[in-house]
Amino acid sequence: MADRGELDVVGIGNALVDVLTHAEEGFLAHQSLVKGTMHLVDEPRARELYDAMGPGVEMSGGSAANTVVGVASFGGRAHYVGKVREDQLGEVFAHDLRATGVGYDTPRAADGPPTGRCLILVTPDAQRTMSTFLGASVRLGPGDIDRSLISRARILYLEGYLFDPPAAQDAFRAAAAIAHAAGRKVSLTLSDPFCVGRHRKAFLDLVEHHVDILFANEAEICALYEVGDFDAALARVRGHCEIAALTRSAKGSVLVSGTRVHIVDAHPVDAVVDTTGAGDLYAAGVLYGLSQGRDLPTCGRLGSLAAAEVIAHVGARPMVPLAQLAGPILG
Amino acid sequence: MADRGELDVVGIGNALVDVLTHAEEGFLAHQSLVKGTMHLVDEPRARELYDAMGPGVEMSGGSAANTVVGVASFGGRAHYVGKVREDQLGEVFAHDLRATGVGYDTPRAADGPPTGRCLILVTPDAQRTMSTFLGASVRLGPGDIDRSLISRARILYLEGYLFDPPAAQDAFRAAAAIAHAAGRKVSLTLSDPFCVGRHRKAFLDLVEHHVDILFANEAEICALYEVGDFDAALARVRGHCEIAALTRSAKGSVLVSGTRVHIVDAHPVDAVVDTTGAGDLYAAGVLYGLSQGRDLPTCGRLGSLAAAEVIAHVGARPMVPLAQLAGPILG
Repeated sequence: MADRGELDVVGIGNALVDVLTHAEEGFLAHQSLVKGTMHLVDEPRARELYDAMGPGVEMSGGSAANTVVGVASFGGRAHYVGKVREDQLGEVFAHDLRATGVGYDTPRAADGPPTGRCLILVTPDAQRTMSTFLGASVRLGPGDIDRSLISRARILYLEGYLFDPPAAQDAFRAAAAIAHAAGRKVSLTLSDPFCVGRHRKAFLDLVEHHVDILFANEAEICALYEVGDFDAALARVRGHCEIAALTRSAKGSVLVSGTRVHIVDAHPVDAVVDTTGAGDLYAAGVLYGLSQGRDLPTCGRLGSLAAAEVIAHVGARPMVPLAQLAGPILG
Repeated sequence: MADRGELDVVGIGNALVDVLTHAEEGFLAHQSLVKGTMHLVDEPRARELYDAMGPGVEMSGGSAANTVVGVASFGGRAHYVGKVREDQLGEVFAHDLRATGVGYDTPRAADGPPTGRCLILVTPDAQRTMSTFLGASVRLGPGDIDRSLISRARILYLEGYLFDPPAAQDAFRAAAAIAHAAGRKVSLTLSDPFCVGRHRKAFLDLVEHHVDILFANEAEICALYEVGDFDAALARVRGHCEIAALTRSAKGSVLVSGTRVHIVDAHPVDAVVDTTGAGDLYAAGVLYGLSQGRDLPTCGRLGSLAAAEVIAHVGARPMVPLAQLAGPILG
């Protein structure tokens, strides 16, 4: 890496290109998809679904990648680790990260499955339902984790989705160990309630012993603790992580740290167009705030602001510089 | 082809995937690009420009392809002929056409240059400036022209851009000859003032002897006749084509047929976001109207309506079914 200076956030995740299309509720039912969640699909199923869906728009995505793009958009120094293949969509993914100022130099796979993609169906209620073909993401392994890179970032951010490709779990654990050894913070998003279901035991162990900053929405934190209501989940998580930032859609978010609980309203939005990226961008705001030493309520407001920007248009990455929008909050 | 029934429009053009990004005026100047026009670039230059530009959104494009998608969106039966390669962007292009109901079965190139792309810079004034790498489009030739397909379409629509790849000119002339032999109409768009500059003599010959329905904007028709004002160009063209549909941006359009001249207002738009596809969709409305035997003023209004829809959002293809919007015009 040319620049050896300190970084604010390094994110690690499944590198995906999003294919967004509008769909009716009936299409989801016909395809046996559960609205608002992420489904893993293999290549033949991805092709079948793609053939059945309407014309698409391709935009770089990937949960943690969207988050680090958000951090960079706030003015933070961000880097990304994730695997694409040497193909056209891999080029698109790399270009779009670098063009937003995010460092990215994970070696591309020269063979194996193509660059991963996420087929996103946006229903008339602006909800997104995702079908992910992991593709080359499954090739990410511990060999892709650069000790010096992880060590010089204030916060390491890991997506729960990274537990789906088996080799990536090792990369995940290796990165977390390096970060802690360097005295850095480790943050995790639980990503999706189905994802929590697939990896619940591992996630519980991580949250109880290895994670400093946890991101989850209501469904995910309830799935983690197998409880039916948010308050019960809140009581459980507060003893484990230094900070938990829990999102509740239109009800805003709750940030918990030890005995302190901060309730932050959602940022107003004229019209919700597409919720893709809402959680990713909320995390971006909180992580940027934390990396700059801001207090928790301010971090929460930055998260709400970034989420509001991204749900007001199609696509999971900000369309205007968040640094510009954040002026009134950061003073 | 499975369906052997009559078609409304067959379009032939350069098959391209658009890469859209926002750019400041200064970026255009720095890259020596003339705003509002189309520049041809080779692969190294396309790469250089792509590296320099911001994060993009990929959407299927191609001038005539956008037009036939518009015809299908009005409810017309449309088919497309154009060449992509067997690669990821080629798949995207084919998917997006078929998903909108346009027939498309031009064999993909198994080798040679990758699927063509058009780098589109949208400036804050909503103007688009295009840099096209033709890619696999240059492989389109007379062998790709299916006599039966061309013969059963009421209107053959050809884009002027098709004169840029040399082999495509032969495909162009072959298709026009088949259409006329079958008693069909041949229509042409002049595409771009620089394109007219490159092929002026050939275009003049086409317009004077082979084209029944001509599309051009003010700059293009003036470039064709090397005259400085619209009225002079109008006087020249009316003797040549059965119908000329001439667009004038916010000033609407003028449709000329023999001694009749119809002036059609632009359709109102709340906010112009991105002019990409305005001309393509105007042509879609006029062609759909003509294929249904509508009178010229109605055809012009359908064109204005379709253009208004497409300039109100990012991207060159309609986001809502034009058939739905056209109700008040078609009664």
